[in-house]
Amino acid sequence: MLNQTMRKLGEERSVIREIFEYGNLRKAQIGAENVFDFSLGNPSVPAPECVQDEAERLLREMPPQLLHGYTSAAGAPEVREKVAEYIRAAFGVPMSGSLVYMTCGAAASLTITLNALCESGDEFAVITPCFPEYKVFIERAGGAVVYVKTDARFHLDEAELRRAVGNKTKAVILNSPNNPTGAVYGAEEIRMLAALLTQKSNEKGEPIYLIVDEPYRELVYGEDVPYVMKYYDHTVVCYSFSKSLSLAGERIGYIAVNPACKGAEELFSAVCGAGRSLGYVCAPSLFQRVCAACLGKSSDLNMYSENRRLLYESLSDMGYECVLPEGAFYLFMKSPETDAKAFCERAKKYELLLVPSDSFGTEGYVRISYCVETRMIERALPAFQKLIKEYRN
Amino acid sequence: MLNQTMRKLGEERSVIREIFEYGNLRKAQIGAENVFDFSLGNPSVPAPECVQDEAERLLREMPPQLLHGYTSAAGAPEVREKVAEYIRAAFGVPMSGSLVYMTCGAAASLTITLNALCESGDEFAVITPCFPEYKVFIERAGGAVVYVKTDARFHLDEAELRRAVGNKTKAVILNSPNNPTGAVYGAEEIRMLAALLTQKSNEKGEPIYLIVDEPYRELVYGEDVPYVMKYYDHTVVCYSFSKSLSLAGERIGYIAVNPACKGAEELFSAVCGAGRSLGYVCAPSLFQRVCAACLGKSSDLNMYSENRRLLYESLSDMGYECVLPEGAFYLFMKSPETDAKAFCERAKKYELLLVPSDSFGTEGYVRISYCVETRMIERALPAFQKLIKEYRN
Repeated sequence: MLNQTMRKLGEERSVIREIFEYGNLRKAQIGAENVFDFSLGNPSVPAPECVQDEAERLLREMPPQLLHGYTSAAGAPEVREKVAEYIRAAFGVPMSGSLVYMTCGAAASLTITLNALCESGDEFAVITPCFPEYKVFIERAGGAVVYVKTDARFHLDEAELRRAVGNKTKAVILNSPNNPTGAVYGAEEIRMLAALLTQKSNEKGEPIYLIVDEPYRELVYGEDVPYVMKYYDHTVVCYSFSKSLSLAGERIGYIAVNPACKGAEELFSAVCGAGRSLGYVCAPSLFQRVCAACLGKSSDLNMYSENRRLLYESLSDMGYECVLPEGAFYLFMKSPETDAKAFCERAKKYELLLVPSDSFGTEGYVRISYCVETRMIERALPAFQKLIKEYRN
Repeated sequence: MLNQTMRKLGEERSVIREIFEYGNLRKAQIGAENVFDFSLGNPSVPAPECVQDEAERLLREMPPQLLHGYTSAAGAPEVREKVAEYIRAAFGVPMSGSLVYMTCGAAASLTITLNALCESGDEFAVITPCFPEYKVFIERAGGAVVYVKTDARFHLDEAELRRAVGNKTKAVILNSPNNPTGAVYGAEEIRMLAALLTQKSNEKGEPIYLIVDEPYRELVYGEDVPYVMKYYDHTVVCYSFSKSLSLAGERIGYIAVNPACKGAEELFSAVCGAGRSLGYVCAPSLFQRVCAACLGKSSDLNMYSENRRLLYESLSDMGYECVLPEGAFYLFMKSPETDAKAFCERAKKYELLLVPSDSFGTEGYVRISYCVETRMIERALPAFQKLIKEYRN
């Protein structure tokens, strides 16, 4: 009667969203200050001032019919040009505005790119642990997911990549800084991956694409995030302003196709066609312009940096096994029992909302989002302490 | 190598967008005041004051982390509740916030609803002339389009509907006020359609849905627009604030499922699942709240009303055959030659940008969008005059 795949997807919701909704309910029941919600990657730091200044300026100065009217499907030409200019200046890639497509955020960037590329029988290799919605997006586009394991530090494993990538592979999805592990893949790793993909593309006789999902690019704690287009021609960047400018709810990002990509214009056409068929008419017009004025800016990352230190040190001291995140705002922590779901259920008793790693394609870990108030972490530490005690008895 | 369907969709673009882009190019070449662009349904009247006031107030008063943060996937709970409250008060339907899903505009409302409903083999009956993107959206969702002709006044034709709707029909799409004809379907027609669908549903053994696409609901010139949910249980309303509040670029609208619909909650779950799989994380958060504060308001429609009169009377006087639009901001005019595309090409000589009706599923007409400055119509009238003279020689 209905599309049952969609009904099931809607009923399950994403595990993360499910916990987020549970958290909202629980906050209404016992007060927000008594729930320690580490579930969602909802930025806790305000947008930088340039966002509010530019939004207010545009509302005051630009004729509303223009400001709020349709832009071209790929975005306002001046916005696309500014994004290209920024990429040229910041990363030294000869980007052109004609290869920039403004989107309704990272999920739209990914679904549009996947739908542009995917033909029947295609496989998409995804580095795990990974954002769980990749699977949903890939399957809806008609592709099959192939998970690729990483090493003990959650960095790229060449042998695993070699096994996973083959003639059916249409693209590899790389998310750096990584959600949920916080790993940032360094230049050496990217070079290895590029060489591997070049070889595999030659064997296949057509390019294997590299889809780089990088909403966390600016959220790093000393690490350098290599710009992948400089290492591999067939790269498509899926970017979002959600995290860097704390605009997750406004749904604004972009797709940039590497000008060095063979058939870049055709790929860009396919991106336009996919956006059209999925109902994306244009990216929100006010925030297209706001973001164009705030390129290269980011929210104040000090709170995330402090939260990372506090959580990592405190939880390690208590005896939890944590991986020090190099970027993003997630701490990946080993579950004290094999079953991470059972651990998360137990954590709920102490009003700690954590996300089990099963949904990220890896067992035995939990993701702790530290894009929260530092005070909440301080209040939550005794709960973490009580929780780990249960495993000592 | 790429998805060729998507590539072709991207290269063709929609005919309307194509003309819009041509218009922009031409304006850059010869000056905006010399191009008479009647192609796009981009509102020419500013958003009502409540939009700017509420946007500025929210930017000033609401903590940016909350204002610009993710909302629940279906929308902020208080926004959904306000929309439901408005529907209850304005139309007398017992709508609940739990059946309202905030979207990124009308195209998103439609693609999400279609993907929620469509199973393999399903047909969707579309009343013609119609918005050309319906075909793109239906086919991407996996369905087949069945076009249903209307009568000479572009109103519903029972015999044609009876022929088109059968056991394979999953839903009928009704767009009222209609783009491109301006037709508003009256209570009698809706009653006829509801009775027909009830009978056909009984024969099929399961409900045939009625998808009501109504971004132009508030844009009428004296006509009453019946609220279809009151006439037929299995109704899903796809709404957008693009036209009523002149916010076409901001991508904001909603889906409302009739509470009387059998399995309304399951259908709503499928809507949530479809939104998720298409990459719609939530509707833009600032404009969710702005629209919730402006429900029932609309832009000043006087300019559209004056444009409608001016165009209809002037073009009729010149000898063009026009249909007086009852709603929306489009004038549907008979092409003086059988081939409407050839007529539109000829019109370009006089810098008149019109859309041929072929893309709306009907031959021999053109669509003239009168959501433009009245002064532009006045300046364009001599061009229309010269154009029709070509057909007199």
